[in-house]
Amino acid sequence: MTLWGGVFSQGLDHSAWNLNASIDIDKRMALEDVTGSQAWANGLQGAGIISPDENQAIQTGLAQIFEEFKSGNFLYKENDEDIHTAVERRLGEIIGKTAGKLHTGRSRNDQVATDFRLWLMNQLPLIEHSILILQQVLVKRAETDFGYILPGYTHMQRAQPILLSHWWLSFFWALNRDRQKLAYIKKVSSSLPLGSGALAGTAFNIDREKLAVDLGFDAPSPNSLDSISDRDFAIEFLSFSSLLGIHLSRLAESLVLYTSAEFAYFKLADAYSTGSSLMPQKKNPDIFELTRGKSGVYIGNLMGLLTTLKGLPSIYDKDLQEDKHYVFSSFDTLVLTLPALAGAVETLTPNAQIMLENIDSSMLATDIADFLVKNGLPFREAHHVVGQIVQYSMKEQKGIDLLTKEELLKFHAAFSVITPDVLSATKSISNRACTGGTAEKAVKQQLKLAKDQLELLFV
Amino acid sequence: MTLWGGVFSQGLDHSAWNLNASIDIDKRMALEDVTGSQAWANGLQGAGIISPDENQAIQTGLAQIFEEFKSGNFLYKENDEDIHTAVERRLGEIIGKTAGKLHTGRSRNDQVATDFRLWLMNQLPLIEHSILILQQVLVKRAETDFGYILPGYTHMQRAQPILLSHWWLSFFWALNRDRQKLAYIKKVSSSLPLGSGALAGTAFNIDREKLAVDLGFDAPSPNSLDSISDRDFAIEFLSFSSLLGIHLSRLAESLVLYTSAEFAYFKLADAYSTGSSLMPQKKNPDIFELTRGKSGVYIGNLMGLLTTLKGLPSIYDKDLQEDKHYVFSSFDTLVLTLPALAGAVETLTPNAQIMLENIDSSMLATDIADFLVKNGLPFREAHHVVGQIVQYSMKEQKGIDLLTKEELLKFHAAFSVITPDVLSATKSISNRACTGGTAEKAVKQQLKLAKDQLELLFV
Amino acid sequence: MTLWGGVFSQGLDHSAWNLNASIDIDKRMALEDVTGSQAWANGLQGAGIISPDENQAIQTGLAQIFEEFKSGNFLYKENDEDIHTAVERRLGEIIGKTAGKLHTGRSRNDQVATDFRLWLMNQLPLIEHSILILQQVLVKRAETDFGYILPGYTHMQRAQPILLSHWWLSFFWALNRDRQKLAYIKKVSSSLPLGSGALAGTAFNIDREKLAVDLGFDAPSPNSLDSISDRDFAIEFLSFSSLLGIHLSRLAESLVLYTSAEFAYFKLADAYSTGSSLMPQKKNPDIFELTRGKSGVYIGNLMGLLTTLKGLPSIYDKDLQEDKHYVFSSFDTLVLTLPALAGAVETLTPNAQIMLENIDSSMLATDIADFLVKNGLPFREAHHVVGQIVQYSMKEQKGIDLLTKEELLKFHAAFSVITPDVLSATKSISNRACTGGTAEKAVKQQLKLAKDQLELLFV
Amino acid sequence: MTLWGGVFSQGLDHSAWNLNASIDIDKRMALEDVTGSQAWANGLQGAGIISPDENQAIQTGLAQIFEEFKSGNFLYKENDEDIHTAVERRLGEIIGKTAGKLHTGRSRNDQVATDFRLWLMNQLPLIEHSILILQQVLVKRAETDFGYILPGYTHMQRAQPILLSHWWLSFFWALNRDRQKLAYIKKVSSSLPLGSGALAGTAFNIDREKLAVDLGFDAPSPNSLDSISDRDFAIEFLSFSSLLGIHLSRLAESLVLYTSAEFAYFKLADAYSTGSSLMPQKKNPDIFELTRGKSGVYIGNLMGLLTTLKGLPSIYDKDLQEDKHYVFSSFDTLVLTLPALAGAVETLTPNAQIMLENIDSSMLATDIADFLVKNGLPFREAHHVVGQIVQYSMKEQKGIDLLTKEELLKFHAAFSVITPDVLSATKSISNRACTGGTAEKAVKQQLKLAKDQLELLFV
Repeated sequence: MTLWGGVFSQGLDHSAWNLNASIDIDKRMALEDVTGSQAWANGLQGAGIISPDENQAIQTGLAQIFEEFKSGNFLYKENDEDIHTAVERRLGEIIGKTAGKLHTGRSRNDQVATDFRLWLMNQLPLIEHSILILQQVLVKRAETDFGYILPGYTHMQRAQPILLSHWWLSFFWALNRDRQKLAYIKKVSSSLPLGSGALAGTAFNIDREKLAVDLGFDAPSPNSLDSISDRDFAIEFLSFSSLLGIHLSRLAESLVLYTSAEFAYFKLADAYSTGSSLMPQKKNPDIFELTRGKSGVYIGNLMGLLTTLKGLPSIYDKDLQEDKHYVFSSFDTLVLTLPALAGAVETLTPNAQIMLENIDSSMLATDIADFLVKNGLPFREAHHVVGQIVQYSMKEQKGIDLLTKEELLKFHAAFSVITPDVLSATKSISNRACTGGTAEKAVKQQLKLAKDQLELLFV
Repeated sequence: MTLWGGVFSQGLDHSAWNLNASIDIDKRMALEDVTGSQAWANGLQGAGIISPDENQAIQTGLAQIFEEFKSGNFLYKENDEDIHTAVERRLGEIIGKTAGKLHTGRSRNDQVATDFRLWLMNQLPLIEHSILILQQVLVKRAETDFGYILPGYTHMQRAQPILLSHWWLSFFWALNRDRQKLAYIKKVSSSLPLGSGALAGTAFNIDREKLAVDLGFDAPSPNSLDSISDRDFAIEFLSFSSLLGIHLSRLAESLVLYTSAEFAYFKLADAYSTGSSLMPQKKNPDIFELTRGKSGVYIGNLMGLLTTLKGLPSIYDKDLQEDKHYVFSSFDTLVLTLPALAGAVETLTPNAQIMLENIDSSMLATDIADFLVKNGLPFREAHHVVGQIVQYSMKEQKGIDLLTKEELLKFHAAFSVITPDVLSATKSISNRACTGGTAEKAVKQQLKLAKDQLELLFV
Repeated sequence: MTLWGGVFSQGLDHSAWNLNASIDIDKRMALEDVTGSQAWANGLQGAGIISPDENQAIQTGLAQIFEEFKSGNFLYKENDEDIHTAVERRLGEIIGKTAGKLHTGRSRNDQVATDFRLWLMNQLPLIEHSILILQQVLVKRAETDFGYILPGYTHMQRAQPILLSHWWLSFFWALNRDRQKLAYIKKVSSSLPLGSGALAGTAFNIDREKLAVDLGFDAPSPNSLDSISDRDFAIEFLSFSSLLGIHLSRLAESLVLYTSAEFAYFKLADAYSTGSSLMPQKKNPDIFELTRGKSGVYIGNLMGLLTTLKGLPSIYDKDLQEDKHYVFSSFDTLVLTLPALAGAVETLTPNAQIMLENIDSSMLATDIADFLVKNGLPFREAHHVVGQIVQYSMKEQKGIDLLTKEELLKFHAAFSVITPDVLSATKSISNRACTGGTAEKAVKQQLKLAKDQLELLFV
Repeated sequence: MTLWGGVFSQGLDHSAWNLNASIDIDKRMALEDVTGSQAWANGLQGAGIISPDENQAIQTGLAQIFEEFKSGNFLYKENDEDIHTAVERRLGEIIGKTAGKLHTGRSRNDQVATDFRLWLMNQLPLIEHSILILQQVLVKRAETDFGYILPGYTHMQRAQPILLSHWWLSFFWALNRDRQKLAYIKKVSSSLPLGSGALAGTAFNIDREKLAVDLGFDAPSPNSLDSISDRDFAIEFLSFSSLLGIHLSRLAESLVLYTSAEFAYFKLADAYSTGSSLMPQKKNPDIFELTRGKSGVYIGNLMGLLTTLKGLPSIYDKDLQEDKHYVFSSFDTLVLTLPALAGAVETLTPNAQIMLENIDSSMLATDIADFLVKNGLPFREAHHVVGQIVQYSMKEQKGIDLLTKEELLKFHAAFSVITPDVLSATKSISNRACTGGTAEKAVKQQLKLAKDQLELLFV
């Protein structure tokens, strides 16, 4: 069955049918299609197009179909071109001719746009929840691992000592931005297309404001033409996924490195690593690698839909049918990846001793410069003096924290007031107590802020 | 001059210098670099690192440099590796050794991230203004062209009659979403990195909350590591540009078609079209074509930065230096394109007669179906009946609006109550009076809403 | 069953299993996995690792598994992590312990790279065939429609008259480049990874040259490390698909326009168009729109894999597992799209009369300029003169082919020798007789060249 | 000056001029534009359109312009819309009115497509040379570092010992594929557009076959319409750059890691690293990071042009003007990056001792399994036995190479024949002597193959 065809003298060629049919994709919005139809039927009754009895029949039929979808008992037929066709076809089987009244004044154009937005709005909490779980794991790690000192890297070179908790929380904030963006996506999504008809608006006196309320949208769309072809919400979701994927890829990359033998900062749990079919000794960080690799899926999907939308003439073009598989694919990949990643992070075993051993004394060079600044040198001069000290220490193969006051005095007179406690990783860390710094005090404040964010839901 | 080098025994190889130097790109943030340094110097005084006199000297020197940049009189030197180096080098020339105190407690890592955010926040109003101009043009067109009837297309096939004003406004709302997104970008941008040091936070007692206020940021960033490497604001701007570029490409594509000889709905102004070096008769819609083509720039830039960020280990990596040229390129392209497009749209001359002639009667098919529904037929049945009528009218080569009541009655008895005024483009349009529909009344309401939006600025 | 695990004390967490398992994707290479194993077992026998009897048992078992896959009777088990595991597990069920010898000296790393290349090489002829069908349709159209005159457009403005056959063939050559590229992909694909082991090469004395011949590869790969992680062949296929997708999108876009009411150059066959659920009169060019929209799939997949590969450290990383779904998706989309498009093009009905009517006389402006040049004017001056004539003709609302010699002489004395036959679409076309031009003669030569290409297969 | 305008009553608006003008981009093809014009003038003489004297004047004028471009003395004027205009304008200044004959029978459409292809073909040897230099460095490293043993990684976990030379050469082959692809790009580029006119072919009797020979093209294009809009060669170059960029990013990523303190396999030369403005001790691998980051440029450019081309109707659209900046940007980035990377690789100092120390004994696990296989165990069983041995050795904190025969015999009786020399990195390596393996013998053969490739030029 198709919802068109009156004017056609010949059926679709097999190859054309295969290319055209969307049921395999849009069956995923079955529940939303039914929900949208229920609201529409109420709207039709409100506008006096169908009688209360007819509406009752439609509602009962749709409720049954809803249950069939939910229980997995709905039987698709070969000719169900898309989900809308399948639902109307089935409704006819259940309630007879009155089913033919349901499509009054609407079109598949406004219907599918409504279904898709509804589907997305329905899934946003699940995405938020999955991110939240990972954020909770990070907070938990920041609490459990509090006090551990990690070499902080820039350019993958040892730079300054930091608290491991500070490092864990750095990923928390990126994820929090992602979660906050969900509110923006929800807002962009919740402009109701239903009632836009095929393009020009419906010719029946439907209360679209009520329809919007009934379906959980903010408001009806202000322009039917725009509403029919607006896929901004899908692009926003794909952009969101891409950026989230980037964040995850950076965490994953770091953990691939930190679980390598050379860093050895963490040990993988057996439950989150796999072995080799050839090399019996291997424990591989697959979860992190796959998380990193999946960034391609999100970005590819974003690029795909942007390409599809580019240069389409207004108003509705069939190309828009291509919107859903990109969104479903990114959604599924997030739902597959986030829990595995959360589990893998949660079950890491840190090795605080190795982390600490890797704090070599040259990482305190900035601290010597800061000492000189606090004793009156312009920073630029201090930076230069310390450069020479570092060179000396390398030549002498002696850590800069082990240089004697006599040795230091050769480089600058200001070292006359230096005391042994100036140079240590602990001191270096506790010195950085500004908002956002790595000092214990600052990280505790940060942790409190982070926990406050955990209490908030954005969708 | 470089801001490093104490530990180096050899200068950079020529090829390495060329790859590494960023001055050609980041000189664009010269004013922001100075502004940021002014606030930082105040912060240093507040923390007791420099004396009021030293701060005064620095402020005076920086003010002079600011003027030099503004007037174009700043002289770069060959060894100015980046904008930060150039400014500190010049400050030293003006105020001597005290210049060496400015970099105390900060790093180029937090400095460049601050400059870049500041630059973007400073440009957002210009982007908003450029979009607003185009929106104003669309509103003006919707007012001027009010009453003109345009064939509405789906699948590039004639579908239903619409008001030209309704069509113009459909682009307005897409642009309004773009403009609203600027508020989101601003929010994401306005987390202050300064005070994050190289990675671990500054070791001096800087009041970062005050610093944020001084520089017009919402708040200091909560985590120094995240803050150093967070480029979400850049991605958000590139995503915004890509989606805006898509919207513009769709308007442009439509106008390329509508200014073709086959549609001929609009005539291009000479001031916004070009000719051919070979074919003397040509007037080409270059502005629309280039607008459409430029969508590649925005999307390419987004893809580029996403690629660059993918899989970077935390915390700071030099790869991040690649962030700016993408943003500058998308920004420049928008600033180049939007005014030309606004001018080209504003100066189009519509041909209302051709638009109306192209409303063939088959576009009223839905209206017949709606008539039958209002007279009791289920829509599905009505759709089928009208399909047959359309086939008949094609076979008879007679418009469906010209079919006699007798002819119609062959298809369904409900036509007995049909009156001649049912079928007309005017009627079809005025029937669609729901919120967001194409009826004059609905479009007038929409126009009012649109004008209200013109009064709002989002950044 | 997994092919690893000896060193593990705990099974994979459920979420990790789901993320890690690749069987749903790589089962598609089942036949290639068996084929590769058959060759490998022969190699093991050749190297004296297994006895002829053992090899015979393995070959028999594998042949049975091959049949099970082919007939769809192969039963996957829940714990079949990937296709290699499934095959080895099943082989064990059939032939017992000897199955455990098959994996000697190889790894899933070289195995999957071999399977994937083999799969691609096996599919290339199908892709070539699908392109060839479309090329044949274009050639057939060029022959059938020979003599029809079409307005040639640049900037979507009428430019010069051309032969419709010339236009059809323009797409032929783009497709021919695509088809020729298959030879390049084949070459890039046919470097054999098998024998590279996990990374360092196999420790058994396998004759890799013979292995390459047995499996239809050009040669064994020269470096095991490169071979394990080289996915260039996949990128090349995705690039090829993207460019082919671009070509198809341009043909599709043109046909969406040419089947619109405004152009009306072609009528769609019912078998390749669909209708509207709301508007009974519609016949939509869905096949062309979907073809155009699918360009996003190819490009998205290319971007996805490029993203995944970016910045991976050598040698093998699990991220590489992400390579296959992109290739399968682009392949499937091509196989779905090309036949439908070929059918839709083949069944178009041209309307030669409308095409001819749309050749307005200003399209002959170049021909007047050429006439003046042939009569001694520098082209630049001729171009200017004709520009004035066109302006005059527009003002007078009189086609330039209808201007009298007297009128023309006002613009230049050279018109004294003009004869009435200079200005016609037919003359304009026949004048362009150079290689590659639109003259009948040149197009006939071109058609011959095209048919010669149809005889060639590149893979 | 513009090359059109006869029919226009008003000049271009300022904003439209800015968007439309391409001179800043296409001035880069100045020499090619002159060369193309020289050949075209010869063609015009050959066709009898201009006299030998006129041609002589044009050739002399063009030769002067060529010199002006080469010496940097060419003066652009404000109204030079594009490079073609600038050249024709200047030619007129030098030789007067005869200059107006040069554009006879050609169009900017075929001219720019010719210039662009010519430019690319001219640059291909430079690109090949830059790749070749890097390949030479890799070969030199493979020779110099011969004998050093490196831990081979998969999943960034230690896997098996390999020769450092083998590792260097793994990048050689990827680059060789890139270099071979240049031949393909050249082939795709060398179809001559000139003579295609604006779209329909030239109306003058030009010998296009001779023109192709004169300009170094393989052949004239077979279809003028295709030729005008075919940008496949640009896409192929951008695809090539993207894949090369991926290869470089992988080498760069590996070297960022191997120059970190944790791996410490290489020390950076001062001439190829930079320091920190804050942390005096830092030596950063900027060249590798920037090389990795630049992968975004290539891929972004590819995405950009694909987007621009998508859905363009045939034949010529102004959007195509957007093709060049992408290609120039990728070209420039390669030319900037490759020499710096070659220098940075060449000047690395390896630390063979650390590499060797990092070969922990578990990396020989495959070798024990292979030993068991050679002594009759099925590999699958051997794999399992070794898994248990590895677990035991981890529990006992005793390297598997240090386990006594007694300990081993607890796991399998086959160990009765084991001798002490079975387990060593050296033995492990020399065992992998198949084609492409890491054994000294195999790597020497590979090195010979590689050097043979260095002798070949593909463009």
